[in-house]
Amino acid sequence: MKEFTIRPDPADPRLTRRVAGTDEEGRKVDLAVPTERPLTLYLNKREIVTMMTIGDYPEYLALGYLLNQNMLKAGDPVDGIDYDPEIDTVVVRTPTTTDFEAKLRKRTLTSGCAQGTAFGDVMETFDASRLPADAVLKTSWLYTLSRKINSVPSLYLEAGAIHGCVLCEQDRPLVYMEDVGRHNAVDKVAGWMATNRVAGGDKIFYTTGRLTSEMVIKTVQMGIPILVSRSGCTAWGVDLAERAGLTLVGRAKGKHFLVLSGHHRVVYDADARTVAEEAKHLRRKGAEEDAA
Amino acid sequence: MKEFTIRPDPADPRLTRRVAGTDEEGRKVDLAVPTERPLTLYLNKREIVTMMTIGDYPEYLALGYLLNQNMLKAGDPVDGIDYDPEIDTVVVRTPTTTDFEAKLRKRTLTSGCAQGTAFGDVMETFDASRLPADAVLKTSWLYTLSRKINSVPSLYLEAGAIHGCVLCEQDRPLVYMEDVGRHNAVDKVAGWMATNRVAGGDKIFYTTGRLTSEMVIKTVQMGIPILVSRSGCTAWGVDLAERAGLTLVGRAKGKHFLVLSGHHRVVYDADARTVAEEAKHLRRKGAEEDAA
Repeated sequence: MKEFTIRPDPADPRLTRRVAGTDEEGRKVDLAVPTERPLTLYLNKREIVTMMTIGDYPEYLALGYLLNQNMLKAGDPVDGIDYDPEIDTVVVRTPTTTDFEAKLRKRTLTSGCAQGTAFGDVMETFDASRLPADAVLKTSWLYTLSRKINSVPSLYLEAGAIHGCVLCEQDRPLVYMEDVGRHNAVDKVAGWMATNRVAGGDKIFYTTGRLTSEMVIKTVQMGIPILVSRSGCTAWGVDLAERAGLTLVGRAKGKHFLVLSGHHRVVYDADARTVAEEAKHLRRKGAEEDAA
Repeated sequence: MKEFTIRPDPADPRLTRRVAGTDEEGRKVDLAVPTERPLTLYLNKREIVTMMTIGDYPEYLALGYLLNQNMLKAGDPVDGIDYDPEIDTVVVRTPTTTDFEAKLRKRTLTSGCAQGTAFGDVMETFDASRLPADAVLKTSWLYTLSRKINSVPSLYLEAGAIHGCVLCEQDRPLVYMEDVGRHNAVDKVAGWMATNRVAGGDKIFYTTGRLTSEMVIKTVQMGIPILVSRSGCTAWGVDLAERAGLTLVGRAKGKHFLVLSGHHRVVYDADARTVAEEAKHLRRKGAEEDAA
């Protein structure tokens, strides 16, 4: 597959807007900021959730959300995905009522809601997952990936306040999604993978966001054995990664990184002392906490 | 009210854990990371959501979530809030079935879910909100608040990968909550305000997170007329702030800040040129994207 099959499109006028502000000395400032709009997701006739999204790839987002929440299983047939920009809705249609809808219908009569009901299922699936043990992460790939991802034009570099997630293979970034919602970026990648029948077993997942439980769960859900982030982690994120045998790498910036679990997949083939620090203008620093 | 009535407690052993990692040169590294655990929220007998939280103040989090999602209205009587750490649940009990449960029961039979159903209500309440026009933000308070908040010991400084939200009055931080979930920190403040019957009209809300639509909606929901962040913003965040007459200040770091809406409340009483830049060790920079 070719490098950057999907990449950010900072020139798309629908994705950023100019906003007028006033700075600390009373000067007028004009800045680019990412757009954000509600998108209400339906699974057949059932309203599932309203997401805040930058608005590109609503079909991938819808499908990826349902898969990552275990509301659809991988391989469940899908008749169609209808996005209606007029009323900010996206409907995923399946030929028959899904297992999730049946379960939800039963539970809502007593106590349940989509989110809570799904969580138990997600953890069951998580514990049943098997990630390939023979996958490898060369540290030279890690450095090359960081460099390529952080220097390609992106909404982040243009407007800040946005998260990025990238599906990679060896040292090549394949699909780079951005979104104002951290988990939307992951879900868009998952939707793209399902639509294009791309398996996760030989892939690496890169995120600008923190390594929380949800990020780890979603990566395992996508069948990807290696998760890399520029940011830090939570204790449960590390616990879950160990439980699933996921290779977890945090704080990957410039020459630095920390392997937090799944050390057996890491091949130290690069000399960290020879790796250059990140160029200042690419350091995701000017707007250092913009994506917080 | 006294300064820092609630402040982070980095010494609480339940809130951080040591994790062993391996760095880029193969050296063992031992680092502190925040804990994260699931907490399932019930409104009476109805399961609402499973949240990932650091785990302090579950009662405030539960109440604040329900209020900010408009599932409870301000002033709705609450019989009790029962937190059970054994099974990670918190139950908010009201004397009678709430309006939200009734509405949800009706909708779930056809198409609805808690999250989607709540969203329409939230926007209705948002548009009906009136923020006090005579509230003021002196720029000298802004600088003092930033300095006090960023130099008080916190889980952020200890472990990174966490967000902070602070309820302030003039130049005094009153309640400083942190959480691995950005919105949990806001909701804990909201729960504290409701429990202690503290009104928002003369307050300032400070967050380390981005100024997205959800952050703006929650601030307005709490009746607070001024929202300040170290981070950037989304276009819809600014739109909503303008619609509600909220004063929105972004990128407040060191001497810098940007007023993005509600300029009429800002009083420029400090000379930005005389304000010192942030001390490097307090700059929320070493772990610059940790809270992303």
